[in-house]
Amino acid sequence: MKNQNALDRLKTIEGHVRGIEKMLENGDYCIDIIRQIQAVQAALNKTSLTILDGHLNSCLVTAIRGEDVDERERVLKEIAEIYETATKV
Amino acid sequence: MKNQNALDRLKTIEGHVRGIEKMLENGDYCIDIIRQIQAVQAALNKTSLTILDGHLNSCLVTAIRGEDVDERERVLKEIAEIYETATKV
Amino acid sequence: MKNQNALDRLKTIEGHVRGIEKMLENGDYCIDIIRQIQAVQAALNKTSLTILDGHLNSCLVTAIRGEDVDERERVLKEIAEIYETATKV
Amino acid sequence: MKNQNALDRLKTIEGHVRGIEKMLENGDYCIDIIRQIQAVQAALNKTSLTILDGHLNSCLVTAIRGEDVDERERVLKEIAEIYETATKV
Repeated sequence: MKNQNALDRLKTIEGHVRGIEKMLENGDYCIDIIRQIQAVQAALNKTSLTILDGHLNSCLVTAIRGEDVDERERVLKEIAEIYETATKV
Repeated sequence: MKNQNALDRLKTIEGHVRGIEKMLENGDYCIDIIRQIQAVQAALNKTSLTILDGHLNSCLVTAIRGEDVDERERVLKEIAEIYETATKV
Repeated sequence: MKNQNALDRLKTIEGHVRGIEKMLENGDYCIDIIRQIQAVQAALNKTSLTILDGHLNSCLVTAIRGEDVDERERVLKEIAEIYETATKV
Repeated sequence: MKNQNALDRLKTIEGHVRGIEKMLENGDYCIDIIRQIQAVQAALNKTSLTILDGHLNSCLVTAIRGEDVDERERVLKEIAEIYETATKV
């Protein structure tokens, strides 16, 4: 269900990107185009947050409550990695 | 020519977004999906930078060298605004 | 030990901020000052990542392996929240 | 005057960083510390925006209305560069 939410968001984002392509083809004002790109980025942030939320409450909990120490380390490292990338994009 | 560059980038981004939709439909691993979303965001950053570069060297220079003080103020305010938003998305 | 690492980083950052104050007092070139502020922000990102890493491997694991369901939900929600803020600052 | 504004902000930020060092020394909760670091980053964003705003309305306008083409190119390139870094920190 969570994933349907993320999928709907991505379909909207895809349409938004196509709209920005049209703006470029029409020679729309640069700053208006940049603002639309920034709006897409805000929408992508919300989408990845939705997916992260589902991940934390399922895969992460399962891995950490499980007995496979390597698996536990792996899922924790992944959280740190996507956090690190989030501070850079 | 700059705009063709930005348009090509956006078409690639649109395909990338469609690929992420497929990953969601296939039930791919959440963290892999989040990483792809972050890759799209990095690509959008490059696209907006390309457009900003063109804007600075054309519209902005024209406005600032022109005699319309309101127009000058407007273009400078826009630069500050998109910079502010860039620090937030 | 991790915390000593974060503390050392913050002391360096504090000195860096004081250096930027001097640059402002000396009337240094604006763009050079902005670049230094951006360098401080990159250093803060690394500091928060260090702290998050320690948190994930201690508090988070303890909470999730524990039996207090509310506590578990709370720590997961916190991770989602700081991730959300990270995409905005 | 604008610079006094930025200087005041930086002095506040310096105190904020010292406060976070105390939190680390006291062994405060990791997530609370990360939230404070994120608050400092939001304050740094506002500071660099204040400085950029002053820069655009003085140095940039002077350079672009001047006749030195290299200087003009240089100031425009700097704006693109700090925008690019802003999308990454």
